[in-house]
Amino acid sequence: MNFLEERIAKDGIVKPGNVLKVDSFLNHQMDILLMEEIGREFKRRFADANITKVMTIEASGICIAAFVAREFGVPMIFAKKSKSVNLDGEMYTAQVESFTHKNVNQVIVSKKFLGAEDRILIIDDFLANGCALQGLIAIANAAGAKIEGLGIVIEKGFQVGGRAIRNMGYRLESLAIVDAMDAQTGAITFRHQEA
Amino acid sequence: MNFLEERIAKDGIVKPGNVLKVDSFLNHQMDILLMEEIGREFKRRFADANITKVMTIEASGICIAAFVAREFGVPMIFAKKSKSVNLDGEMYTAQVESFTHKNVNQVIVSKKFLGAEDRILIIDDFLANGCALQGLIAIANAAGAKIEGLGIVIEKGFQVGGRAIRNMGYRLESLAIVDAMDAQTGAITFRHQEA
Repeated sequence: MNFLEERIAKDGIVKPGNVLKVDSFLNHQMDILLMEEIGREFKRRFADANITKVMTIEASGICIAAFVAREFGVPMIFAKKSKSVNLDGEMYTAQVESFTHKNVNQVIVSKKFLGAEDRILIIDDFLANGCALQGLIAIANAAGAKIEGLGIVIEKGFQVGGRAIRNMGYRLESLAIVDAMDAQTGAITFRHQEA
Repeated sequence: MNFLEERIAKDGIVKPGNVLKVDSFLNHQMDILLMEEIGREFKRRFADANITKVMTIEASGICIAAFVAREFGVPMIFAKKSKSVNLDGEMYTAQVESFTHKNVNQVIVSKKFLGAEDRILIIDDFLANGCALQGLIAIANAAGAKIEGLGIVIEKGFQVGGRAIRNMGYRLESLAIVDAMDAQTGAITFRHQEA
């Protein structure tokens, strides 16, 4: 197991309905030393890519993306969820469906901060059905930016999101891929990945 | 001018209606080197406080709070905006009114991550009317945690939020206090503060 899988096995809590709670270290209370380690690991995996910007979506991706951006020495942008389009200036927009909250958010990125010259790394905490990543890919493509890769902390390998994005030829790296969870025993099965 | 006032004067944009746009470096695109400098500055100002946790509210406080927490070597928690209270486990909750978005959000923090033993530093990007800070103070008080201080990046000194919080005896440090803005000339007047 890598450092993240070990942490998930130690502190993650499996709940019925394939819910994995990691709110003690990843998406409510944040372990900053772990964030730094995640930042270094994505830098290692995408060391050959000449990243100019790291992009994520509010809220739980922000802290992770910040430490990834720190390793690359580039700015981080987060797409904002917005009910209205009244923001001044021009915006790239995408629709993002949330299964957890059962709604659709419009997400926006200012055109000022993303352009055809950018080579971006998209970062998020979770990948399940992939709706958030699809929205970020749409925004990057609308900007004409080159998507160098996508980095995910925890992928639910039994859901379709990761496969769909890999099928489209994107370079997607997930630090941990959970293939199965058992709410009764608390057991978590990780997909084997080359280090 | 300190480093932050200089950056605001250089890259901040004054819009009609006392709006200060800092989205190129503080709350949409994030300048990570600036985040690190902000983290170090709050560490310097609260060096005497024995902070155990840094708390903020999603979304734009998260990146800043993460770099503050890094300096103190403690975890960061962010209060989540929530329409429902269906989250499992017990939560501290507060109502936070948003003047910008003209709505009321319920914000929540899990009781697992905040308790009477905590000495917390509350961090946010902006302070205007103070509704977000009031909600975070309410949550900390509900937990019985000691509020060691509050750190704000930009305070709008011509609005009432900061005065109310200082009047209540809280230690509130704002890296920049904007006393006036002129949308016609773009001029920004900062309150003089002791370094």
